[in-house]
Amino acid sequence: MSVPENPKASSSAQPEWVKPNPTVQEPVLRVYNSLTRSKDVFVPTKGRQVDWYNCGPTVYDSSHMGHARNYLTQDIVRRILRDYFGYDVNFVMNITDIDDKIILRARESYLLNQTITSTPTLTAQLVADTKAAFIKFVNTKFTKSFPSPLSSTQQDDAFATLEAALQRDQSDPEWARAAREKEEKFSLYLVSLTKARDAIKTAEERLNAQQAGQGAVEELVKGTGDVLGPYYGETLGDTITDPIAVSRQLASHQESKFFEDMARLRILPPDTITRVSEYVPEIVAFVKKIMENGFAYEGGGSIWFDVAKFEGAEGDGFRHEYAKLQPGSKGNKKLLDEGEGALTASMGKKQPADFALWKAKSKPGEPAWPSPWGEGRPGWHIECSVMASEILGKGMDIHSGGVDLMFPHHDNELAQAEAYHGCRQWVNYFLHTGHLHIEGLKMSKSLKNFITIEDALRDYTARRLRLAFMLQTWNAKLDFKKDLIADTKTKEETFDNFFANVKARMNDAAARGANTDGKHHFDEPEKALTADLHKAQYDFRLALCDSFNTPQAIGVLLDLIAKVNVYFSTRGRDVNVGPVSTIAQWITRMLKMFGLGEGSAVGDATAVGWGKEGEEVGASGDFETKLDPYLRAISSFRDEIRRLAIAGSPSVSTDILKLCDKFRDDDLVNLGVQLDDGQATDGGALYKLVDPALLIKAREEKAAIAADKAAKKAANAAAAEAKRIAQLEKGKVSPKEMFRPPNVPQGTFSEWDEESGLPTKDGEGVEVSKSASKKMLKELKVQEKLHKDWLAWQAQQGQGK
Amino acid sequence: MSVPENPKASSSAQPEWVKPNPTVQEPVLRVYNSLTRSKDVFVPTKGRQVDWYNCGPTVYDSSHMGHARNYLTQDIVRRILRDYFGYDVNFVMNITDIDDKIILRARESYLLNQTITSTPTLTAQLVADTKAAFIKFVNTKFTKSFPSPLSSTQQDDAFATLEAALQRDQSDPEWARAAREKEEKFSLYLVSLTKARDAIKTAEERLNAQQAGQGAVEELVKGTGDVLGPYYGETLGDTITDPIAVSRQLASHQESKFFEDMARLRILPPDTITRVSEYVPEIVAFVKKIMENGFAYEGGGSIWFDVAKFEGAEGDGFRHEYAKLQPGSKGNKKLLDEGEGALTASMGKKQPADFALWKAKSKPGEPAWPSPWGEGRPGWHIECSVMASEILGKGMDIHSGGVDLMFPHHDNELAQAEAYHGCRQWVNYFLHTGHLHIEGLKMSKSLKNFITIEDALRDYTARRLRLAFMLQTWNAKLDFKKDLIADTKTKEETFDNFFANVKARMNDAAARGANTDGKHHFDEPEKALTADLHKAQYDFRLALCDSFNTPQAIGVLLDLIAKVNVYFSTRGRDVNVGPVSTIAQWITRMLKMFGLGEGSAVGDATAVGWGKEGEEVGASGDFETKLDPYLRAISSFRDEIRRLAIAGSPSVSTDILKLCDKFRDDDLVNLGVQLDDGQATDGGALYKLVDPALLIKAREEKAAIAADKAAKKAANAAAAEAKRIAQLEKGKVSPKEMFRPPNVPQGTFSEWDEESGLPTKDGEGVEVSKSASKKMLKELKVQEKLHKDWLAWQAQQGQGK
Repeated sequence: MSVPENPKASSSAQPEWVKPNPTVQEPVLRVYNSLTRSKDVFVPTKGRQVDWYNCGPTVYDSSHMGHARNYLTQDIVRRILRDYFGYDVNFVMNITDIDDKIILRARESYLLNQTITSTPTLTAQLVADTKAAFIKFVNTKFTKSFPSPLSSTQQDDAFATLEAALQRDQSDPEWARAAREKEEKFSLYLVSLTKARDAIKTAEERLNAQQAGQGAVEELVKGTGDVLGPYYGETLGDTITDPIAVSRQLASHQESKFFEDMARLRILPPDTITRVSEYVPEIVAFVKKIMENGFAYEGGGSIWFDVAKFEGAEGDGFRHEYAKLQPGSKGNKKLLDEGEGALTASMGKKQPADFALWKAKSKPGEPAWPSPWGEGRPGWHIECSVMASEILGKGMDIHSGGVDLMFPHHDNELAQAEAYHGCRQWVNYFLHTGHLHIEGLKMSKSLKNFITIEDALRDYTARRLRLAFMLQTWNAKLDFKKDLIADTKTKEETFDNFFANVKARMNDAAARGANTDGKHHFDEPEKALTADLHKAQYDFRLALCDSFNTPQAIGVLLDLIAKVNVYFSTRGRDVNVGPVSTIAQWITRMLKMFGLGEGSAVGDATAVGWGKEGEEVGASGDFETKLDPYLRAISSFRDEIRRLAIAGSPSVSTDILKLCDKFRDDDLVNLGVQLDDGQATDGGALYKLVDPALLIKAREEKAAIAADKAAKKAANAAAAEAKRIAQLEKGKVSPKEMFRPPNVPQGTFSEWDEESGLPTKDGEGVEVSKSASKKMLKELKVQEKLHKDWLAWQAQQGQGK
Repeated sequence: MSVPENPKASSSAQPEWVKPNPTVQEPVLRVYNSLTRSKDVFVPTKGRQVDWYNCGPTVYDSSHMGHARNYLTQDIVRRILRDYFGYDVNFVMNITDIDDKIILRARESYLLNQTITSTPTLTAQLVADTKAAFIKFVNTKFTKSFPSPLSSTQQDDAFATLEAALQRDQSDPEWARAAREKEEKFSLYLVSLTKARDAIKTAEERLNAQQAGQGAVEELVKGTGDVLGPYYGETLGDTITDPIAVSRQLASHQESKFFEDMARLRILPPDTITRVSEYVPEIVAFVKKIMENGFAYEGGGSIWFDVAKFEGAEGDGFRHEYAKLQPGSKGNKKLLDEGEGALTASMGKKQPADFALWKAKSKPGEPAWPSPWGEGRPGWHIECSVMASEILGKGMDIHSGGVDLMFPHHDNELAQAEAYHGCRQWVNYFLHTGHLHIEGLKMSKSLKNFITIEDALRDYTARRLRLAFMLQTWNAKLDFKKDLIADTKTKEETFDNFFANVKARMNDAAARGANTDGKHHFDEPEKALTADLHKAQYDFRLALCDSFNTPQAIGVLLDLIAKVNVYFSTRGRDVNVGPVSTIAQWITRMLKMFGLGEGSAVGDATAVGWGKEGEEVGASGDFETKLDPYLRAISSFRDEIRRLAIAGSPSVSTDILKLCDKFRDDDLVNLGVQLDDGQATDGGALYKLVDPALLIKAREEKAAIAADKAAKKAANAAAAEAKRIAQLEKGKVSPKEMFRPPNVPQGTFSEWDEESGLPTKDGEGVEVSKSASKKMLKELKVQEKLHKDWLAWQAQQGQGK
């Protein structure tokens, strides 16, 4: 290598600076793209601005866990892009408030309500209407779900058909299973019809008994609503004079409820919301231009997209493609029909693969808007093409939606927009959130595993739901099951315990004046821990760069916590709180970045304003800060009392110590304060805030162990006492009597020394030998001692009585 | 352009995806680098990890606005890198707690304090010491600042010199100006000497009047401190037995105060703090290796860096460079000497350009650590080279510090580290924060424009200071003047008004059910406003990419607010709150990113923990509710302790009761908790939350009343005692003597009954009348009783002695 000349010559000029040469490459964000079914490098077209359009809800009913899975997952990805990767995300979402489901549901509930308010007393006509509705429902929908005819069915008696079906459903499991397979709503039909039958019977009885007031009307209409609604919808739909307002009322109500649910799940509101009802003129113009571009035609008053013409049509240096996302589903009639909606006639459509851009008003009473092709309403797919183009222009970086919208909705949306803009690729990254299952099964009302967001939030906190969802990647199927909840709970507790431990150490360090002790040198454990943090930060970035791999990212945080815990146990009381609190602050920021904050730590991603000078800091992270001096006071007060008691007179000490233990084990445990005696650096108690339930459980376990120990001790004591008594009982016989009957067999001896009671002659009158006498004297001496003990015991026992 | 074949053939395969082609390039971050004096593209070496070493404070005095300018500015840049650009910033800062300034200051205050505590009364010796100190100060420092000799000066009388200088300073403005020019501390000298002179005079008078108690000693020492401190430091320095501890005590105290000030300015704590006193062995090893590498030599027990040898020395494919930052200052003796410190002798240094790596202990009483070259202490520059290498390894991305540290400190630091590591470029980006001026002048104690951080925070909020600093770029000179404060205030109000307006609109929209009115269509004004937001986001990024140009970035936010205000006035009541609240949320996030939040919007960049499930987020009312059980626990715990103590043995009870009172009157009063013993329904204490200031006042009033009462009681008792003694004194005369002289005038009586002492004849020899005799007998009986009492009292007094 050539060495440059010594630059001393020009001494006042700065020497050459070397541009840094990275030793570690920055990981690149890749995103799983439904358009390629692979993870593509993420390249936004406008620098750091990310234009994102998300398919919003069709607002006709309460939002459920399927919605939560979709919107919560998108919220997580959006927060990562915005608050981790630092993009300026422009998040647009539509509200579908024009839709066949809304029209049907709205007009049914409107007509039912109108019937209630306009019918003061029960009439024979109303009862007749409900019966007609019942019969129609049975004959058109219900019987179609039968896998085989019912033997006892009387074709002309709908009520008998229901009874027979109920019986068969009970008695023939094979038939019941087949019925549910043929029609997934079979169970719901049974419930609706049974309810309706009972309501009709009650109404007939009331009519006969002439007890038919307003209450009876409401009861009948609500009881038969599931059959009467569709019946009225069909027969009286044309009586509605302002169908747009009727639809909009339901949509507006459901939209409000949707956003309330989203807010409770801490999902950020979109930057821009578009409602279909506000963009009808733009839709008309958009359709017109597609026609002008040659990709749509009129038929039966509706406008249809000409799939065959579009596919392969030459653009500016490219050919148009249809069904980019799901090419295999092209021409799938079932999927296409579902996409068209219940109220759409296919009159005028040339090819089965074509789909409606504009639907002609088919019946009076349907909401309709003017257009060059007569009154009508927008097709479902066109809504998104138009609104996204209105807000985002000729293209976008990200489009997202549930995986079940891939075909035909998103494929048709792409075709329309590309036909309109004459562009090759309207969306660069298409993100589809995965399905949600409940305990391994698809969620449905029929399966009775249907969970609304309101239900879910009754059982789980917003954090637990979010964390549970994050334990699966955003685009995979998520099975919401007991195991997952248990796993989530464990992980949540790991984070909680970690924060409690770190806070306790930080408070302890603050109390002793952290900078005075000179114990801040970075030794090997601190260097290793800091290296662990940097490794974790890198791995965390790798995980999120790998198409927002949240389970892996959470795993990185938990692994880092495990390493801190090892550090805690290695260092004991000599913990250096510096690197530990740096780690805890980073983990805190990352969790809050994901939207996982609760209480005061929710953060304020939707906040407006930068606070006010002198404003009270009232939130609960602050609560802990404010509470801290109180805790410190209790803790050190108690420490001092203990010291006094330990130095004091025996009985007072004992009492005070017992009280101190009670204070620790009962009062403070109930408050969620854990005191560890002698664990603070000054030798006093270390306190931390912990979930009271966990502390109570630990206390109970401790008590159980103590009780067990006490029971064993008592048993041992009882055995020892029995042994002692048996020993004492041996001394019951006076030594003077011990060689006389009945203590020896009659006739063993015949003469005794009066004073000592020692035998002198045996039973035969022969003098006792010297050796035998010596042996007995020894025994007698032993008994003398035993008897003395026995007498003392007896005297004691006597006193005791 | 060739058009590809129609891909209809393979209909189930996805068509080709086109990688997006950005139309707007992402702006690149450039940073003003002192190593090139230009804005270099920022390229960290370890991916997104940024290793950053910041020169921390030398902790010997209170922190001032110069510190605020430095650390606040670095905090802003750090937050931008971390929270805007999303780097994982690893921020390391040192505390210089071994330094000549600390050693001098610590030992002076230690010696002065010791003099006060060990001198019970004023002595002629102490007065002589202060005079000697005064004379030395005048003759060595003061006269050197004179631009011309004083005509009336008597060379041998320091006091006369001072008088003459004071006169000349008043009468000759030209001379006064020149004196201040010659020595910037001239004004401070005048103040110190005048104060010292007055204190010495007072002490001399007291000594003559023999009124020389402890108070007089303290007054003299404090009054002459500025001259006596340095004098003692030089003459008695060697009497200090533990100089390391003396230095460390001052450093530790000042470090705590420094971090308190930083926290009040909302400056994030460093990720790692290193203290020089904890890294001495590493410094010794580092110096040793530099010697081994041939770039340092021993001389006079110190180790010196060999600049000539280092400069141009051949490395691995490069040549070493010295003074990269400020090549023009090479060999600048004044700057080099300042860098060496006041206590450093240059004994053994070969070339003037060389500098100390290790300073030999020159005098007894200096803090010193062992080394292979004998006892000594680290040089100033080496500290940072070593600690940065210890924590960050062989190099770093960013090094920062105040602009006045460029030469010699940072240039020497670079040379040392590059000499140690054998590397070409130890620091890639050197960031120097600009100077601070006050109303156009350098801040200094002499100019009386010296502002401590505590002073500043009395006048301005942390936000106003930060925003004011942000209105200048981080590396330019900042003039803290009235105009700037006024401008800052105006800008703050613009933000406040904007947020108030947007919140009002948002509340209004929420009240009327935002989604029901169908007025959310994006017309031209909304489209234009949204485009303004995206333009602002881009411009904001451009500003921050341009070496963190905060004044420009704040300008972008204010321009956007101006556009929203135009939108408000254009739309009137038809405002679409959607784009406006999106803009307000973005501005809020950006302001908080800068650390500009106040009150609840401070955010919690240093927070640990992600909150708690079900935790109340609320105002201070909630805090009281939540605090209640804690207070209940403290209170009843204390009640029980009292009960136990009252029932316990005398001495333990007393101690515990005293503690309970202290807990009530000190600890709880300071927390704002008032305890009224016996006032709760259960007979225990009643507690309430009260303003601590009120409680403290009440406590003082109570103490005053008690003192008053005690004084009155004592006065009454004294009066009663006097009365009692007067009464007793009446009985001093024996009844037998009471009618004899001198108790009655000579000649009143002439004969007495021998036994009783009752007069029988008057002075004339006439027999005493019966009535007179009876009256005297009565008097005598009374005196008998009084005399008996007197005798008893006398006996008691005798015993008492």
